[in-house]
Amino acid sequence: MQQIDAPTLLIDKTKVIANIERMVAKANENDVLLRPHFKTHQSAEIGAWFRQRGIKAITVSSLKMAQYFAQNGWDDITLAILVNQRQYESINRLAARVQLNLLVDNATTAVSLSQHLTNHVNVWIKVDAGYGRTGLPWTEQTNIHATAQAIVNASSLTLKGILTHAGNTYATPGAAAIKAAYDQTVIRLNTVRMYLAERGVKTAVSIGDTPGCSVANDFAGVDEIRPGNFVFYDLVQQQLGACGFADIAVGVACPVIAKDAARKRIILYGGAVHLSKDVMLVDGGACYGRVAHLTSTGWNQPYTASKLISLSQEHGIILAEDSLFEAVKVGDLLLVLPVHSCLTVDLYPAYTTFTGKQITKMRTN
Amino acid sequence: MQQIDAPTLLIDKTKVIANIERMVAKANENDVLLRPHFKTHQSAEIGAWFRQRGIKAITVSSLKMAQYFAQNGWDDITLAILVNQRQYESINRLAARVQLNLLVDNATTAVSLSQHLTNHVNVWIKVDAGYGRTGLPWTEQTNIHATAQAIVNASSLTLKGILTHAGNTYATPGAAAIKAAYDQTVIRLNTVRMYLAERGVKTAVSIGDTPGCSVANDFAGVDEIRPGNFVFYDLVQQQLGACGFADIAVGVACPVIAKDAARKRIILYGGAVHLSKDVMLVDGGACYGRVAHLTSTGWNQPYTASKLISLSQEHGIILAEDSLFEAVKVGDLLLVLPVHSCLTVDLYPAYTTFTGKQITKMRTN
Repeated sequence: MQQIDAPTLLIDKTKVIANIERMVAKANENDVLLRPHFKTHQSAEIGAWFRQRGIKAITVSSLKMAQYFAQNGWDDITLAILVNQRQYESINRLAARVQLNLLVDNATTAVSLSQHLTNHVNVWIKVDAGYGRTGLPWTEQTNIHATAQAIVNASSLTLKGILTHAGNTYATPGAAAIKAAYDQTVIRLNTVRMYLAERGVKTAVSIGDTPGCSVANDFAGVDEIRPGNFVFYDLVQQQLGACGFADIAVGVACPVIAKDAARKRIILYGGAVHLSKDVMLVDGGACYGRVAHLTSTGWNQPYTASKLISLSQEHGIILAEDSLFEAVKVGDLLLVLPVHSCLTVDLYPAYTTFTGKQITKMRTN
Repeated sequence: MQQIDAPTLLIDKTKVIANIERMVAKANENDVLLRPHFKTHQSAEIGAWFRQRGIKAITVSSLKMAQYFAQNGWDDITLAILVNQRQYESINRLAARVQLNLLVDNATTAVSLSQHLTNHVNVWIKVDAGYGRTGLPWTEQTNIHATAQAIVNASSLTLKGILTHAGNTYATPGAAAIKAAYDQTVIRLNTVRMYLAERGVKTAVSIGDTPGCSVANDFAGVDEIRPGNFVFYDLVQQQLGACGFADIAVGVACPVIAKDAARKRIILYGGAVHLSKDVMLVDGGACYGRVAHLTSTGWNQPYTASKLISLSQEHGIILAEDSLFEAVKVGDLLLVLPVHSCLTVDLYPAYTTFTGKQITKMRTN
């Protein structure tokens, strides 16, 4: 800790392992496949922690990430973004080495894929069950059926089923609201599954979002879950009710460079390039992070009446409650809990553990 | 262009050179020192384009950035963030090699600095002339004077003067409002300068912000300007009136992966990890970028009735006007102009030019 002189991404391995084990146990109890999304941690070493707990199949968000994890021994990978026609060549090369599972949202793309691929891939139909980002609306069942037929008819493609990202579980806080969004998603996907089954097309159902998978305890109607963020959680998940502060497993240690007694502000060396500019509403105002004291083995609970109210490129401004303001002096380190851990982690090439070890990760760019 | 299959940071060198030359000419006409902030581009090669136009002194936002540019031949560097007491050792090593200029905001830090540094540094007093982020409020002239005395009394420190970042030029759009904020800043700093001069302390005045330096044509009362963003500009600067769309010199080429005719949406492979999550208000709603067609040598003017309305980790959603929606098909590339170029560029290890060359840069983390 003495050696940290600039914003540093810290990881609490004990919390990470607990987060992994909780989700693994829940998936096992429900006899569903846990195919965790590795976009959150992007690290071969952290991937190995999953493997040690029985995980064999993963989800990624880019072809580069699929290549990275394939090089690190993963051989069943779902690329959970709609097929990018500009990447057919790279997809072909990767499909020759691993079981690749791709997403399409229409019959035309399925046909194009089958014409350009020389190696076999599995295909999921991306369905929009209410989130509204991508995928065929779940109500367009004729269209989903036509897409399924196009996949079934292509010899190089195997239809796996219907897949959604239920991002609408982020819309309303509280376990009950998350569970309601989750239930609605499962019912809608099973309506589609029944429609297809009646027409002789057998499909699995894959869902994936951390709030839903954290809150649900019964995965009836689902074959596969793909949460990712749960490995670290963050302030958005805590605010939603998907985790507690104590479950958040990453943070950024930042040096204090100034204090402003008149306005009860603490200025951090730590800005948008260290935390990301993602923001949440807390008490009606912008919150870019919460702060806690570091210990030699981790960090304490955060101050709940203080928050980062502003971020510029390299500066963060904390509006501090009295006890925090008094406890901190210029030159100290504070731990910032991230609003959105996926984006914060993405800014770094490595994690630092509390034993001083570096855990490397891939970089998006 | 054919080879781009994933989000790629593109640079239009012609525009960069024009942006540099315009600011250099303005500084020369006014006989002020242009000490550009290199936090925007973070590239030794782009730094050389400045050097070829007579720039000899620079500004940076981190010690790591100072070290990078020192290794690349720059020997007069202002570290424009308040001195971080945890970095005294590294500061000492760097001060042995180059002329380092540091910022303090109180007498205690000045004394601490003088006690810990073995090599000479220049010191600026950071003054808050209205922005409200860091620095001694310009109204606290007794305090500023005491800080100046502490610096003057320390043999290893040389007082350069008073310095501000007039971030308040971003508060209100329009050249007149920017100029009013700029003028207010200059008047306030010169009030402080006069106060100190009457007490026998001679100080230079340094200001730095792209809107003010873009709009002002007369730098009376100022010795040094430190704008940074002007090298690339971005949508925030365009909205403010500090530049035109045609001056924006970087963008991210993104593959189109879906279209949604019912909602006139175009889905890009290109999200928060490729653009940053910085956001601006356009027509009362969130805007994460604007899009334009690529040509073989650059890009066209952006569509002004379309914008990125949402960004997740790897996806961007464009709400498209009819002509854009009709002109684009799945598999095409679109160029996204960034909301805040400093944060977008920070996500990448290199720029790609329209001749296919890679221009490397340092990484923050």
